[in-house]
Formats: sequence, structure tokens, C-alpha cells
Amino acid sequence: MTQRLRLKKNADRRLKAGHLWLYSNEVDTQATPLQGFEAGGQAVVEAANGKAMGVAYVNPHSLICARVVSRDPGMRLDRSLLVHRFNQALALRERLYDKPFYRLVHGEGDLLPGLVVDRFDDVLVVQLNTLGMERLGEEVIAALDKVLSPRVIVFKNDTAGRRQEQLEPQVAVVKGELTGPVLLEENGVRFEVPVLDGQKTGWFYDHRANRAWLNGLVAGKRVLDVFSYVGGWGVQAAAHGASEVLCVDASAQALERVAENAALNGLHEQVAVGEGDAFEALAALKADGEQFDVVILDPPAFIRKRKDIPNGERAYARLNREAMRLLGRDGLLLSASCSMHLAPERLVEVVRGAVRHQDRHGQVIYQGHQAADHPVHPAIPETAYLKALGVRVFRD
Amino acid sequence: MTQRLRLKKNADRRLKAGHLWLYSNEVDTQATPLQGFEAGGQAVVEAANGKAMGVAYVNPHSLICARVVSRDPGMRLDRSLLVHRFNQALALRERLYDKPFYRLVHGEGDLLPGLVVDRFDDVLVVQLNTLGMERLGEEVIAALDKVLSPRVIVFKNDTAGRRQEQLEPQVAVVKGELTGPVLLEENGVRFEVPVLDGQKTGWFYDHRANRAWLNGLVAGKRVLDVFSYVGGWGVQAAAHGASEVLCVDASAQALERVAENAALNGLHEQVAVGEGDAFEALAALKADGEQFDVVILDPPAFIRKRKDIPNGERAYARLNREAMRLLGRDGLLLSASCSMHLAPERLVEVVRGAVRHQDRHGQVIYQGHQAADHPVHPAIPETAYLKALGVRVFRD
Repeated sequence: MTQRLRLKKNADRRLKAGHLWLYSNEVDTQATPLQGFEAGGQAVVEAANGKAMGVAYVNPHSLICARVVSRDPGMRLDRSLLVHRFNQALALRERLYDKPFYRLVHGEGDLLPGLVVDRFDDVLVVQLNTLGMERLGEEVIAALDKVLSPRVIVFKNDTAGRRQEQLEPQVAVVKGELTGPVLLEENGVRFEVPVLDGQKTGWFYDHRANRAWLNGLVAGKRVLDVFSYVGGWGVQAAAHGASEVLCVDASAQALERVAENAALNGLHEQVAVGEGDAFEALAALKADGEQFDVVILDPPAFIRKRKDIPNGERAYARLNREAMRLLGRDGLLLSASCSMHLAPERLVEVVRGAVRHQDRHGQVIYQGHQAADHPVHPAIPETAYLKALGVRVFRD
Repeated sequence: MTQRLRLKKNADRRLKAGHLWLYSNEVDTQATPLQGFEAGGQAVVEAANGKAMGVAYVNPHSLICARVVSRDPGMRLDRSLLVHRFNQALALRERLYDKPFYRLVHGEGDLLPGLVVDRFDDVLVVQLNTLGMERLGEEVIAALDKVLSPRVIVFKNDTAGRRQEQLEPQVAVVKGELTGPVLLEENGVRFEVPVLDGQKTGWFYDHRANRAWLNGLVAGKRVLDVFSYVGGWGVQAAAHGASEVLCVDASAQALERVAENAALNGLHEQVAVGEGDAFEALAALKADGEQFDVVILDPPAFIRKRKDIPNGERAYARLNREAMRLLGRDGLLLSASCSMHLAPERLVEVVRGAVRHQDRHGQVIYQGHQAADHPVHPAIPETAYLKALGVRVFRD
């Protein structure tokens, strides 16, 4: 008989609305003490009145103590359901993209809490971000095998989220062998992906549509790409006609890869790199009297927790102010944030402040979000995290 | 000597942040009584301490009693400044689009409060939405002439906003002659624009990017376009490979134009029309057992004033629920709202409710906004009004 996890009165409201998370303070621990559950095991969730609401995997030691994997109490998340969900996810991506480069599984947005899979043709990079999903690791491999028969599967289990679930980091090739470079194509431009030692899965597909938008506006322009990582924005800008691109990053390794990616597309003459802290680099460029037609700001998350919001907003404000000083008379700022805790309208406010600070005018001509292979779950605001504003900045 | 409009203490805060509007209750009417201003005339705005903050045109009888036209107190909005602003606006559009079909001037977003100009090649359709702009009508014509030498200029002065400014409606050809159809091209598809007797300026350029996104996902699909107007969405879907499109609208005249626009693109066999109230039409389609792969909801604003928010949200909810019932097993809903008072996250909530009501799953794979030729002023939230969500709806 399956274990049951009972909720307190009214604690079923979020679930009824479609959300997939349960917090430990919502559990009726008199009726069903959390320590009675196997960590990572699955249980039927029931409302205070005993009505079964679905199946969740449980982590008694995490603030989010359970995540729903099916609304059907008779189901279990097993190889068979994983195969079904992967097929559903694949059907969407195949409708969206004509090449096999995309995020195949985006956690809760694909009804698979805690699981991320990025696809680079026949190489899949997997992140198991919760204990419940970690326990299903072998089933995930088997199900991916069944649906896509990939040549290589990599576990890139080194996310911050895992620490909250008390999981150790693990980076390993779990199927096949990584021989030769892993390549991808995005918006018609080729890149090599550092799947083992890069950030996250090695690539950020989430900005694909935002980059596509910017690519249409860079021909003949001088472009600055701040926090460039391996050149996703900058190399694409060069490929779409930018006359000159400067990629700035704090990581020498990332900048080596920028150069390699530029060369891969025959663009080594257009793309330069500069190593250093972003704020220091912006100040140095200003001191040197440099100006750019387009500045791209794609920083790491400055706000990781709710309590960081005030400090984080100040960091975004400072960054945008400093960047705006480098824009020419009629410039374009691409200002992004991947902080879920920064509301879209707050990023507009950041840009507004920076525009006013320079006594310029701003026009927000683009409001972008995460790409379609990073679906937002409509009941889980936490799944919507990415913002990208395109702002024309001019003097009247 | 120029008249001065003095603000109450702290009432300059919004202006300092970059906003362009002044409300009548923010004016120090002891120092500068509103009835002392010529309706539609221009005045220097000063803070409570006497510091000049810019120039605004004044309407003593409107809730928004003044709108800033320049932050330089020495300027006036006249033919010369209009020419300058039109050139700035044109520079942006020419960078964005390779054909002369776009919104050339988007009011506050282009620092020209109360003025809208849509361009259909050599035909310009102008809306003067405030008294201050109405007074400048002749200068607007002269400045447009100087910048673009259009063949025809139409004043389409019949907006709801004019009533609040106590202006009479006026629809007139004020330059040249309207001979033959007015044509436009959007996303590669041709349309005829009803500039004199259509809605607003005759066309809605604001959804261009949202339509472009949807166009990529309709090949081979059966599409329902609700509130179709002259077929902006539906005819474009057919042009991009939809197997069958049904356009529903309450206006027989609009539907005649759908048929003409379909024919103009050689698509009369793919596009059908149905006349009727949207809610009734959706119910009738459901009763007939009809199903669609894609449903487009682009209703008129259900929320015109803040007090309409609860009723309006209920209307959006009902519409989205009814539409979702017509979607097949793995369907796509394009749900739009042009109500400025409906926050983007509220539209997500509308969609969430509709998905749950049908016990389906939803994935928000697109969050669109107004196109780049409708710039948002970062200090004026009121200039951001358009939302379009792309939602995959499926049964698990």
C-alpha cells in the first residue's frame, strides 16, 4: 500500500490551482510525520479531508518537501511515465525547431520537477536537481535511451539547488564516451559547448529568441558583450554583421572559447575579448573614451533569494548605469536578468533610472523572456525567470 | 513672457523620474490657477521651489491637465521640434523594418504625447488625441510633409480619448486624395487597410511580432481566429501554411475584408468567415463538435478603466475557458489582451484558470508584447498595454 502525505486544511489550494510544490509547513505532521517518509520516495498527496490529489516525491529535509509528479493518484513517476513525458516534451521541441539543439526538458514547466535535459544533437546533458529526481537517475537514463537513443548522456549535477536537497555534486559521463567537441547551432551560428566544465549544462538556450531579435539590429554596429561567457551573444552579433564585437568576461577560459567560437564561424577578425570584472571593465572602457552602438548586459543572477532583492536591484541599477555611459548618441542597450526574484517591471525601472541618470531618453522596444523550450508553468510563477529588454537610448 | 505652471510640493517627483503627465490635483492652483491657461496652449512647468522643469501643453479641463513636450524649458513644441521628433522616430523604424509599413509615431513613447501616426507607404493616418496636439494639427501636417512628403494624410480623429479632452470627432483627408485601395505588407502578407471606416487607424501594427511568432507554428493546422477584424492573424496564418482558417467577427464589413484580404494573397480557399458574437460563436462551434489545433483570441479591451478590472478579468477568463474547449488534444492557444489595466501576470492567471477548468495542462511558451514601433516609455507604465501569450494546451 502506498504511503499518504496529508495536507493541513486549505493547504491544498495551491495544488488545486495547478502548482506542483508542497512546503513542509503545509503538511499535517500529526497525521503524517515527515520523518516517516523515505527521502526521495513517492507518496499519494491527500487533502485534509482525505481526498487524494496526486502523487509526489518527498524530501523530508527540504523546505519544498514534496513535488507533484502526477495528478493521477494511481500513477508513479517511473520509466514508463518518464518516457511519456519525454515524448510530450520532444513533440513540442520538434514543432518549434528544425534542428536537434534545444532544452528538451525544463523541470516543472514540462511536468518533471527537478529535471533538466539539454540536447546537443546526440549528446544529452542532464541535471538532477532534487533528491526525488536523483533517485530516478537510472530510470531517466533508460527513458532517454528509449526515446532518443543518444550517443552520450552526461550528468552535470553541480547546481546550487542540489545543496538545498543535501545532494553531493556529481559530473560524469553516464552513457557513451565524450570524444571530440560537442557542437550546437543557434540562430544559424555554430558553437562548441563545454559540457563538462562550463556553466550549468554548458549553454544557455534560454536567450535564443532574444538573441535572434538583437541579431536583426547589429549590422555595421560596434557591439560590447558584457558577461559574455563563451560568446553566445557576441559571436552571433558578429555573424549577423556587427563590424566589431568586444566580449568581456571574468573567466579567461570562457574567453578562450569565445575566440574558438568566433574562429569556428570565420569571425576571428571581428571578435575581440577582454578579461576582467564587468564593473571594472566598464569603468576602464569609459576612461579610455570608448563608445559602442550596442551594449549587451547578460549578468549572472544578482538576486538568488528574496532577501537579496534590495542589494540585487542596486547591482542591476549600477550595472545598467555604467553600461549606458558607453553608448553613443543613438544606442541600443540589451539588458537581461535571469533573477526570478526581479519582476519584469523592476527591470524596466532599473533601465528608467539609468536613462534618467544620464539625462537621456529611453524607448523600450523589446520585452523578451525565456525561449519556448523553457516553458513557463502557468500556476508556478517561479518557472518564469528570464527577462531581456531592448532599449533605444538617445539624446533629444 | 511664457506662462508658468507651478506644481505643489513633491508633485515634481514623477516628472523627475521621466514621466510626462501632470494631474490637475498636482498643480499649485493658488499660485497658477488652471483657468488662467489657454486650453491647448503651452507653458513652462516649474517645481514648487520655482525651478523650471520643462514645457508642457495644458488642458485645464482634463484630469491629465498637462503633458510635457520637452524637458528643456526654452523649447516649444512647434513645427521645428515636430520635424526633429519625426526624424528621430523615423530613424528607429527604418532600422527596424525594411518596408514603409509601421507605426511612425507612438505618442508618449516617441516623446509626442497625444499623437499617433501610422504609415502605409505614402499614406499617413494621424490621430490627434489631446487638445494640445489638436491645436498643433496644421504644424503636424507641415512637419510630416517636410520629413516624408506623403501622398495622402488622413486625420482619423475619432478615438475615445478625445472625448475626455472634450474634442469632437473628425475624420478627414487633409492632404491629397484617397484614390484606390490603401495597401500594407506585414510579415510578408498583403492587406488592404480601411483607413476611413476601420477600427483605430485601420490596422493594428502592434501585434506584428506576435503574429510572426505564431506564423511559424501553424503549417498544416486548423486555425480559429476570434475577433478577427480584417484578418490580420487569420490570413497570415493561412499564408504561412495553415490548412484551414475560420475568422469570426461581429462585423459583416470586417469579414468582407477578411475575404478580400485572403483573395489578395490567393488564399480564398483556405480562409472561411463566420459572423457573430464571439461568445455565441464559440458555444455554437462547441455544440457542432468542431475542434481546432490553434485558437487565436485577440479581443477588444475588456478593461477600459481601473474600476472595470474585476468584470473585465471575468470576461477574459470566460473567453479563454470557452476557447480552450475547442482545442484538440495537443493545441495551441494565442491569448492576447490590449487592456493596459490587465497586468501581464493576470493574463497568465486567466490562462491558468482556463487550463485547470478543463483539467488540462498548459505551457506558456511565448510571452509577447507590443511591437518595437510602439515603444514603451520606461517612466510611463501606461504606455505598455499589449500582451500575447502562446500556450500549449495538452492532456497528460
